[in-house]
Amino acid sequence: MAGILEWRLTVSDGSSQELTPELRWTYRAWTSVVRLIVGLRLRILKFMEKIWKLAVDDPRRVAHCLKVATALTVVSLFYYVRPLYDGVGGTAMWAVMTVVVVFEYTVGATLSKGLNRGIATLLAGALAIGVHELAHRSGDKAEPIILGASLFLFASAATFSRFIPTVKTRFDYGVSIFILTFSLVTVSGYRVNQLVELAHQRLSTIAIGGALCMVISMLVCPVWAGNDLHLLIARNMEKLAMSLDGCVEQYFNDNGNASDDEEACQELNGYKCVLNSKAAEESLANFARWEPAHGHFGFWHPWKQYLKIGTALRFCAYCVEALNCSINPDIKAPEFIKKHLCGPCMRLSLHSSNVLKELSITTRTMRKSSTIDFSIGEMNGAVEDLQNALRSLPHQLPPPPTSSTEEHEVDKNRHNSVPPIVSIMEVMPLITAASLLIEIAARIESVVDAVEKLAGLASFKQAVDDKPDKPKRIEAHNKPTLEEQGQEGMKALEVA
Amino acid sequence: MAGILEWRLTVSDGSSQELTPELRWTYRAWTSVVRLIVGLRLRILKFMEKIWKLAVDDPRRVAHCLKVATALTVVSLFYYVRPLYDGVGGTAMWAVMTVVVVFEYTVGATLSKGLNRGIATLLAGALAIGVHELAHRSGDKAEPIILGASLFLFASAATFSRFIPTVKTRFDYGVSIFILTFSLVTVSGYRVNQLVELAHQRLSTIAIGGALCMVISMLVCPVWAGNDLHLLIARNMEKLAMSLDGCVEQYFNDNGNASDDEEACQELNGYKCVLNSKAAEESLANFARWEPAHGHFGFWHPWKQYLKIGTALRFCAYCVEALNCSINPDIKAPEFIKKHLCGPCMRLSLHSSNVLKELSITTRTMRKSSTIDFSIGEMNGAVEDLQNALRSLPHQLPPPPTSSTEEHEVDKNRHNSVPPIVSIMEVMPLITAASLLIEIAARIESVVDAVEKLAGLASFKQAVDDKPDKPKRIEAHNKPTLEEQGQEGMKALEVA
Repeated sequence: MAGILEWRLTVSDGSSQELTPELRWTYRAWTSVVRLIVGLRLRILKFMEKIWKLAVDDPRRVAHCLKVATALTVVSLFYYVRPLYDGVGGTAMWAVMTVVVVFEYTVGATLSKGLNRGIATLLAGALAIGVHELAHRSGDKAEPIILGASLFLFASAATFSRFIPTVKTRFDYGVSIFILTFSLVTVSGYRVNQLVELAHQRLSTIAIGGALCMVISMLVCPVWAGNDLHLLIARNMEKLAMSLDGCVEQYFNDNGNASDDEEACQELNGYKCVLNSKAAEESLANFARWEPAHGHFGFWHPWKQYLKIGTALRFCAYCVEALNCSINPDIKAPEFIKKHLCGPCMRLSLHSSNVLKELSITTRTMRKSSTIDFSIGEMNGAVEDLQNALRSLPHQLPPPPTSSTEEHEVDKNRHNSVPPIVSIMEVMPLITAASLLIEIAARIESVVDAVEKLAGLASFKQAVDDKPDKPKRIEAHNKPTLEEQGQEGMKALEVA
Repeated sequence: MAGILEWRLTVSDGSSQELTPELRWTYRAWTSVVRLIVGLRLRILKFMEKIWKLAVDDPRRVAHCLKVATALTVVSLFYYVRPLYDGVGGTAMWAVMTVVVVFEYTVGATLSKGLNRGIATLLAGALAIGVHELAHRSGDKAEPIILGASLFLFASAATFSRFIPTVKTRFDYGVSIFILTFSLVTVSGYRVNQLVELAHQRLSTIAIGGALCMVISMLVCPVWAGNDLHLLIARNMEKLAMSLDGCVEQYFNDNGNASDDEEACQELNGYKCVLNSKAAEESLANFARWEPAHGHFGFWHPWKQYLKIGTALRFCAYCVEALNCSINPDIKAPEFIKKHLCGPCMRLSLHSSNVLKELSITTRTMRKSSTIDFSIGEMNGAVEDLQNALRSLPHQLPPPPTSSTEEHEVDKNRHNSVPPIVSIMEVMPLITAASLLIEIAARIESVVDAVEKLAGLASFKQAVDDKPDKPKRIEAHNKPTLEEQGQEGMKALEVA
């Protein structure tokens, strides 16, 4: 029996039975089918969970789907019930197509696409009718040549224009509709009077479809790109503040214990969102330009300035990233130096993040802060404190061990409390962290400048309390105001 | 005459003549017209220059425009000359529309859109015909209800699927075509046998248009997204290396003199390209997946790994950014310490950028480097040297000024050459720079890992010379190989 594998199945009563080859195969097939089904079920459950999370994270997504489906059903059934058309190729098609293509998530995107589509169709149609007429009058032989040449020329020029950055970001869809309409009209076999009739029909259908989309997207649970951008920037400031605080606190308070609390970890990694939000900011700002006045935002709201704030924030985030890495190395700084720098570092990070939080509230509530100058002053004071602490640091370092004879004459008390050799290598992470903290404070000032410019451009409301002449009292008095403003911010979030 | 402004025109013979009010207005109007024309001319010239630069920077853009225009003209004139259609709404339209919408700059994007369009049309058409038949059999009253309900259901589900990240990046266009086709077919008044006929016609037209686009985009001056991604990553490594080199050299060599050479400045700012190329990398990697095997890249080329390399590079770039700021502050480090650290810092930055340059060549030529291990060894050696230099730094710092009595006993030679007090504040920028350089070296190692993983996944060719047992000779021997590889890289660029 040696060398032959035996398959046995243990039955519940304890006895076991040998499996014949056929039974083995059936058994194997059965288990693999079961495994497949279980695996599939798990996958489907995971997928459903993902979908559910998508919907719960932002219920406006569900609303958007219902809005699109409603618009599409309304426009389709309207044409179905009132047969104004001659089949799939008829006028109804253009209304349905417009709804499908134009209806986007944000109001700005919908308006941008709708206007692009309408204007491009109009322009290209007019141009094409002109070319068509010209070709028609030039005789039968010249006609296809003129048509082909003009098509080639306009199509290549329009395609090239898509490489121009401004056109690419704002009119890309319009250019493609321009090419489409121009080529369709140019090569159509119709005469000009027929074309004008057709163009009139088509334009009115597109207008109906487009207007339906725009109205629904603006009136039913509107998702304003501008408001989203506004909140994104404010939220990013907060996240950066949290990261900065968490990162410094974790190092000085419970050094070594990597935080296992998931929430704390998420807070710590908030700066990563700031690093990666460039694309989102740019697309939102691009769409926001197309939006009419809404909420607190006028028609000429300075959306571009938000991008500048975003860039300034990202510059802070680069430093926070470097900081996050520099203070988590294997080299442990000597305790006495750590203690010496702990206070100033913690204070600086606290005041820096306070400034960021105030800026976040200022941005969110669109109301100038009465205490921001005071906070900036405190931050700058903390920078000076840290610099002083660093300046006094060499006095704490023991003299070099080379001059061993003189060493004994130096005050012995200090030598009892400190390790004999402290090399720059050991304090390097600390000094780097301190230097990065100072750099972060400097970069926060450029965020302050950007926000102040925004406040000027968008004429933010004046602060409630304008003269913070008693610092101590203001700090105590500040809290309720902050909370109030926070609540206003939350309201804005809920409305959105 | 006091208080009245007098307008005089100096004529060329030296005499001047007073202008009457009418003449003044004409004169003003004339000058403003001239100014307008000059301004307009300047603007147009600037615009033309911009366009010219766009074309010269990447001549493939011009080729792309000609390709699109050719495809469009061919397909349009084909249907124009052979009137297979019944007007603008007929079958020809779908071919023209497919060409306009599907033809994108890169092969991957074109294939992605073409396949999305084809498959979505097929799926939605089949589903819609089924629903249509079901509704038709349910009687006249139930028909619009079933049609409307199914349209609402499918449209909202499909719209929601666009929020799933995978669907958004890869199948977004397909989903919108699915909704479009489904709604057009569902609400059409045709009977099923008519619909099948129509679907057959339309699909074949779309297939002809799509195939024309794909063939032209693949055969005539193809722009492969994969190749672009490949070169982008390799170029980013080089840019980062240049930045690192330039930044450290500028600080230690000609401190203070901000480089006014434009080229040097551009080199110095190369890391900014790396910081901002995330979106480009992601979109290229997304399109590259759709591309068939081309050049050195197989069908299953690990494009995702390029994104990982890109991320690792960006992590380096964050540190280079912090480095670039930390070593340009107003605080001037004492000369003797700067001299002490200059050598090790320069060596480390040189070896770090060497590793990056070798990785760039490895990636570009898809051939493993025979000297990369040696270069990494040198970089790590340089890290140790710098760490040693930092360790020996306190020996160079004079003892604290508090113990003034003992100070005189310390070797006086040293005191003659150094300033009396060196605070940590003054050496801080230097120490921060050194610490960031060490961090950059560590991050470069993770780029090395990512590139090595790519080399394994994409089975890069073996290096020509595999045993670098004599370091000195290899360095000398290395140069021609590097140049050869560089030339191969340049060839790859030209082919692209």
